[in-house]
Amino acid sequence: MPGYQWLSLTTDYGLSDGFVAACHGVVARIAPAVRMIDVTHLVPAGDVAQGAAVLAQTVPHLPPGVHVAVVDPGVGTARRGIAVRTPGGLLVGPDNGLLPWAAEALGGVTEAVELTNPEWFPDVSRTFHGRDVFAPAAARFALGAALVEAGPPIDPTGLVRLPDPLVAEGDGWLEAGVLTVDHFGNVQLAAPGSTLDRFGSVVRIGDLRVIRGATFGDAPPGELVAYRDSAGRLALAVNGGRAADVLGVAAGDLLRLERPAGTGGSAT
Amino acid sequence: MPGYQWLSLTTDYGLSDGFVAACHGVVARIAPAVRMIDVTHLVPAGDVAQGAAVLAQTVPHLPPGVHVAVVDPGVGTARRGIAVRTPGGLLVGPDNGLLPWAAEALGGVTEAVELTNPEWFPDVSRTFHGRDVFAPAAARFALGAALVEAGPPIDPTGLVRLPDPLVAEGDGWLEAGVLTVDHFGNVQLAAPGSTLDRFGSVVRIGDLRVIRGATFGDAPPGELVAYRDSAGRLALAVNGGRAADVLGVAAGDLLRLERPAGTGGSAT
Amino acid sequence: MPGYQWLSLTTDYGLSDGFVAACHGVVARIAPAVRMIDVTHLVPAGDVAQGAAVLAQTVPHLPPGVHVAVVDPGVGTARRGIAVRTPGGLLVGPDNGLLPWAAEALGGVTEAVELTNPEWFPDVSRTFHGRDVFAPAAARFALGAALVEAGPPIDPTGLVRLPDPLVAEGDGWLEAGVLTVDHFGNVQLAAPGSTLDRFGSVVRIGDLRVIRGATFGDAPPGELVAYRDSAGRLALAVNGGRAADVLGVAAGDLLRLERPAGTGGSAT
Repeated sequence: MPGYQWLSLTTDYGLSDGFVAACHGVVARIAPAVRMIDVTHLVPAGDVAQGAAVLAQTVPHLPPGVHVAVVDPGVGTARRGIAVRTPGGLLVGPDNGLLPWAAEALGGVTEAVELTNPEWFPDVSRTFHGRDVFAPAAARFALGAALVEAGPPIDPTGLVRLPDPLVAEGDGWLEAGVLTVDHFGNVQLAAPGSTLDRFGSVVRIGDLRVIRGATFGDAPPGELVAYRDSAGRLALAVNGGRAADVLGVAAGDLLRLERPAGTGGSAT
Repeated sequence: MPGYQWLSLTTDYGLSDGFVAACHGVVARIAPAVRMIDVTHLVPAGDVAQGAAVLAQTVPHLPPGVHVAVVDPGVGTARRGIAVRTPGGLLVGPDNGLLPWAAEALGGVTEAVELTNPEWFPDVSRTFHGRDVFAPAAARFALGAALVEAGPPIDPTGLVRLPDPLVAEGDGWLEAGVLTVDHFGNVQLAAPGSTLDRFGSVVRIGDLRVIRGATFGDAPPGELVAYRDSAGRLALAVNGGRAADVLGVAAGDLLRLERPAGTGGSAT
Repeated sequence: MPGYQWLSLTTDYGLSDGFVAACHGVVARIAPAVRMIDVTHLVPAGDVAQGAAVLAQTVPHLPPGVHVAVVDPGVGTARRGIAVRTPGGLLVGPDNGLLPWAAEALGGVTEAVELTNPEWFPDVSRTFHGRDVFAPAAARFALGAALVEAGPPIDPTGLVRLPDPLVAEGDGWLEAGVLTVDHFGNVQLAAPGSTLDRFGSVVRIGDLRVIRGATFGDAPPGELVAYRDSAGRLALAVNGGRAADVLGVAAGDLLRLERPAGTGGSAT
């Protein structure tokens, strides 16, 4: 069957060792014509939820391809290695919750297999499945191999899933989990950007006043702005600063947004 | 018209999110045959001058191509998105001073347009123009689109320019702005390397003695050396150490070099 | 003669400047069809031994190609620039000990030259031989140039070598140098993984109890495990933590592993 020209890599391997290059090398040896895109290799070590969020928000912008993701603190234990097919491409990685959000962003899982074929994986270390299982499987899929050549079909509904981040709302308030904090310190919440519509021109978070806007420059320098971010989520930024520091939050924390007392939100 | 095979990316996006990969993906979807080179994505957040300096010193060594640069604290505000043509390639990014130094390094601006064509940019977020404006425009230019297809011509002399870094000199002294501090802590000044010729074998900076040399090993381990760096600038290094730490300076600071008292510069 | 389609880069240049991109650009201008893999650019500045260890452990997984490595604190001094041929590919870099371990991993040096041909290197800075000597030489080799076109043959046995890391063993104990500490804090020793066989199910390091296992999850969360790592070396990890921090060691330090007192290693 037709394969894919593109292959992406998302890991927590860091950039200071040769781990990422070894994965590139394995792909290059098996499928030299395949083109590779590195999503990130700086997912915090073992942080499956962060890896899942970054992957899910990035794959829609990549060309159709095979997406390898490895944030895998349970490598070499009983957790399964899997590959899943979606309308938008394939995903390959550990069955620990890393892949389902990205699979949904690509249209949902239509087929899944466990990566067990000993002919595909003759010499597997216990600690580096990115190099020994996921990259070589992905390279073969890119060349056009069927998923079932890699191992037996598994039930897509049985894949390990992360808990959905909390979003709760009431009259004049919204509570939402922090999904990611990006390089700029911008705080992305699990709630969709449209939830901002329930608020006026000003939002309150604890004692802090947040201007509702569309981009960073809509707030004066150093002040907080709430906006719909480029992934469609409700997010908080500081114009020229780091919202995560000002708010004192990290991924996984909970934030409560409230409508200020009084009309029109003109005061703190 | 003929396009370009190569496209480079210079941003302050960092490497921990999927922002850089989204830009790669957008280019790959529009112009799959284009090859990409990442200049750096670790420009300090919002530091336009640092981005401009790194870009200008790197593009002469890249193959002719389309160079996308995004250090854009004013994204989504009234600042313009632009593309400029030079004899050595195209530059695409915000009109905030980021591009002119690189344009000069490539032979000067011969044509400039504002990126406004709604057919090119149908769905633009307010906070991620790298993905939604600059990368797709660059990909189309690489395929051979004319600049004027992206928007109306603008006056090259009206582009936003950064102030030139200070260089002043007198009898036996030189004052120059710190243009960049590199990964090794080497301090690059805005002055050309030839200005070293006014000094003897030793230069003084405050109380510090600096040996005039051609490479790091010309100074004893741990000591300062002044040299013409690989970009042709006057620079200061410590053999086996970090000159920026020894001198206590960062980009944008001012340094004063002086001829030591006495003849031949043999003493501090 | 036939060349190579692949070229890898390993440096201590960091990722915040344009140094790596300049090397990519130089290769792209000379040999545009060559594909490039970045091994790492985060070798600690000037740490030749760390660069040599990462390179040697990565090249066996890369496609046959030309491998450029630049960790070169003596750049521009009398140290030689060299290229060496092995059965598995070419290595290009400074003659300071950086290349021999990788050469051995690729089958041993069969030919070596000093990079001196003035026609190949007409305009060489004194501080950036990655851009001005090693990358352009590698690009020409990838195109099929013979090593001797770059300069005169030299005696492979005369290349500068790093001292071999210490490994010593006795009845119930093993002392070995720390070869690398990776991104996860895993501590890789110079001893082969098979040396673990002399121990029972538990090993002692000072007052610390280390479980002998095959992967991280073989120890309870937060506890030390000794295992054969993916490069075949004896290594120490903490399940969900950083062994280097727990053990308080860095590359170059020495660790002593001991068989616990009593039989079968059941107690600390």
